[in-house]
Amino acid sequence: MELSHIEHLGIAVKSLDEAIPYYENILGLKCYSIEEVADQKVRTAFFKIGQTKLELLESTSADGTIASFIEKRGEGIHHIAFAVKDGVQNALNEVEGKGVKLIDKTPRKGAEGLNIAFLHPKSTKGVLTELCENPNE
Amino acid sequence: MELSHIEHLGIAVKSLDEAIPYYENILGLKCYSIEEVADQKVRTAFFKIGQTKLELLESTSADGTIASFIEKRGEGIHHIAFAVKDGVQNALNEVEGKGVKLIDKTPRKGAEGLNIAFLHPKSTKGVLTELCENPNE
Repeated sequence: MELSHIEHLGIAVKSLDEAIPYYENILGLKCYSIEEVADQKVRTAFFKIGQTKLELLESTSADGTIASFIEKRGEGIHHIAFAVKDGVQNALNEVEGKGVKLIDKTPRKGAEGLNIAFLHPKSTKGVLTELCENPNE
Repeated sequence: MELSHIEHLGIAVKSLDEAIPYYENILGLKCYSIEEVADQKVRTAFFKIGQTKLELLESTSADGTIASFIEKRGEGIHHIAFAVKDGVQNALNEVEGKGVKLIDKTPRKGAEGLNIAFLHPKSTKGVLTELCENPNE
């Protein structure tokens, strides 16, 4: 598997309305998109810094994974997403063959139309890890 | 404050010896440096992916901040470090003026000879945030 860069970092926040002003007014970044991803029960806000996006994640449901994460650990970095060079399915096949536990056996659609899949943090030294590719690149 | 890119991500691990093979054999990255930072009570291992480094952090002491982090939350992403364009001290002055609580009021030396300073996670929506600059660039 070859990774090209960190595509984005997912950051769990209680409220986009409270978090966006921090990223804009203190860090000087610009929110360029807000998008709801219904099947993940989140509203997302995107910022770009260099090659990488910051994806703020607000739960839209009390039983969503982001709500559960914040309840257990508080707000903070939720996952890291690596851009893979040769397709997400190839990468999944390769790492599963090496014994990595997968959350997604096949890629699904994520925010911004990316093909994404998550590895299980039990296999990744505690870091929830997403692999992704932009099908239009 | 203007940020140019994510300089590195700090990732707390129990053991470099156990974590490095995951990053090398599964993710396909290459550990290019191992360095002890005595005043932070850590041993660090560095990988590069695109513009960003991954800095694995292993505690060298049972009372270090990384040991305490792992005890409370388990292994995982510990902090995000942004490269600032106009100097860390200027950035600290600016954000303190906007009400951000600081861990470091003035920059200190971090791994790889960078000038670094941490903002307090109480002011950063739960994300432990480091600002840094390379004095040789």
